[in-house]
Amino acid sequence: LLILALDPPTGVDAFSWSMRIAEEVGDLVHGVKIGLPLVLDIGLQRVGDLLSVFKGIKIADLKLADIGDVMCLTLERLASIGIDAVIAHAFVGFRGAIDKLSSRCRELGVKLILVVSMSHPGSSEIMDEVIDKLVDVARRACAWGVVAPATRLDVVRYVRSQLPEAKILCPGVGVQGASPGDALCAGADYEIVGRLITRSDSPRRSALEVLEMQRKKLAICRR
Amino acid sequence: LLILALDPPTGVDAFSWSMRIAEEVGDLVHGVKIGLPLVLDIGLQRVGDLLSVFKGIKIADLKLADIGDVMCLTLERLASIGIDAVIAHAFVGFRGAIDKLSSRCRELGVKLILVVSMSHPGSSEIMDEVIDKLVDVARRACAWGVVAPATRLDVVRYVRSQLPEAKILCPGVGVQGASPGDALCAGADYEIVGRLITRSDSPRRSALEVLEMQRKKLAICRR
Repeated sequence: LLILALDPPTGVDAFSWSMRIAEEVGDLVHGVKIGLPLVLDIGLQRVGDLLSVFKGIKIADLKLADIGDVMCLTLERLASIGIDAVIAHAFVGFRGAIDKLSSRCRELGVKLILVVSMSHPGSSEIMDEVIDKLVDVARRACAWGVVAPATRLDVVRYVRSQLPEAKILCPGVGVQGASPGDALCAGADYEIVGRLITRSDSPRRSALEVLEMQRKKLAICRR
Repeated sequence: LLILALDPPTGVDAFSWSMRIAEEVGDLVHGVKIGLPLVLDIGLQRVGDLLSVFKGIKIADLKLADIGDVMCLTLERLASIGIDAVIAHAFVGFRGAIDKLSSRCRELGVKLILVVSMSHPGSSEIMDEVIDKLVDVARRACAWGVVAPATRLDVVRYVRSQLPEAKILCPGVGVQGASPGDALCAGADYEIVGRLITRSDSPRRSALEVLEMQRKKLAICRR
């Protein structure tokens, strides 16, 4: 229920920094999520080496938001290094975009995760106003999962009500403000935690603490 | 008025393929646009080497669509290899997203280009319905430019009427269906051409032909 967001700070050797974290918590977390800055820093092949240390689901969070053909080209490259799931934006729409990406994901055995809401204030300016359409793209694509912010539990609950089958992944836990376990109680399947673990003196101890907090919260809310 | 979209086909050596095209047309085109698949293929440093062959504006079209802090991390890496302009999605909204990216762009001397409409059919499902809000994000960010599809000239005209000062860059010319010069006549500043040039037997001759077609169309429509 815990996915690690592996985002190195600026100014460190991104590969050794990431590898150290990976070796500390790779067996504990249920998945790992890497972003574009890390890919630019260390290149695709070394991202593959890094991800092989993790046991769980390996997610490329490049927030794909292009026409279908271009997203498929990116997907093929990600699949070649062992990525299990890719994150794309539902707002590019279905036809000629998510439809193509979704088909190619199925062919390659890669899970598709679509962003339907984000954690920053600007998400309410445009995306939140069309959330039903974003959710509908996820429904039409039979997306394996969707992203919704742990910082806004009402959004998580709404998405859960609209998409009973999809996995919900929630960033925003820890430094961004949400407490471990709260999004799970609101209907999420995974919480994504970055700095709370990666910037800790002991990433392993912090990951264990997050898992324990999740367990305690769930024991109460599912009682 | 011509920007080259440098997107290598699958299965070629992306670096030598791109370098050959660059050397043929690097002095002719007014800019070059590279995308995520190429960056994944050859890595950031070699993208920098490649771009140095071009005289005009160097645009990174990674369609950034994340929270502001993450987009800024990507921007810093792109600026370090000599990118002049980055393309991001207006869809993520202003606060905590485009506001931060826009400020950091100004600090680094990188031009900001925002997508307000796209060329695929799915663009009409969600983005076109909120185009005024997307245009408003571009206005608030004082974006240097915006992207609108050459395949839909009514959209180009509308964006021009709403954003008199912004540069309008139009993909979709050539293989995707639009003729060189038509978007310019509709108010665009640059047309983005890919395969019509890159897949030609003689990229240089094809680029010269596109420039000539643009000149002829403009001579008529601006008469």
